[in-house]
Amino acid sequence: MPTPFEELAALDKLIHEPARLAIMTALSACSAADFTFLQQLTGLTKGNLSSHLQKLEERGLIAIEKRFIGKTPNTQASLTEQGRTAIEQHWQSLDRLRKNAQLIGRLEPQIEL
Amino acid sequence: MPTPFEELAALDKLIHEPARLAIMTALSACSAADFTFLQQLTGLTKGNLSSHLQKLEERGLIAIEKRFIGKTPNTQASLTEQGRTAIEQHWQSLDRLRKNAQLIGRLEPQIEL
Repeated sequence: MPTPFEELAALDKLIHEPARLAIMTALSACSAADFTFLQQLTGLTKGNLSSHLQKLEERGLIAIEKRFIGKTPNTQASLTEQGRTAIEQHWQSLDRLRKNAQLIGRLEPQIEL
Repeated sequence: MPTPFEELAALDKLIHEPARLAIMTALSACSAADFTFLQQLTGLTKGNLSSHLQKLEERGLIAIEKRFIGKTPNTQASLTEQGRTAIEQHWQSLDRLRKNAQLIGRLEPQIEL
């Protein structure tokens, strides 16, 4: 069984990238969020946010819906089931890492050569 | 004040990279750890671990000490003060992000257009 550190070192870099981690985590908290909201939340430029959303969509982690509200175009993003599982597992890996780091601290006397 | 999501999107990528996050988090749990221990812990190859440690050292986040134990060469890594502050702040940013994501979930009714 891989140690949590091995697990972390092999983490999914597509999700782990800071901006995408912020986007996925925000989406994990709501059923859907629209583009402008995500942009305000993450502080990303339109171009950056679009390219991150595209990468996540290509990997099947999010779904993008384009619609009109009245005459105004509106883009909404939401996690797919795969995406929701992936972000939950990602945070669980990070949690395991941290808990294990504390364990190492207690083992320390044996580590010092 | 930047939202935690903005904070996360601007996270220090040098630390956030999964393998280096694993190394820094492991080192945050002990005063020092030797190369072989870090290699077992992270599952990284010698070459990968060396290059990650070098990048962290160049940024002043860790200190590397090379010595002999008897006739055997031994390399030890430890966090510098700057490194210890940086990894603590990194995890704090991640915590804030998560807490805020839960808040968003409660705001959700207002978000849906």
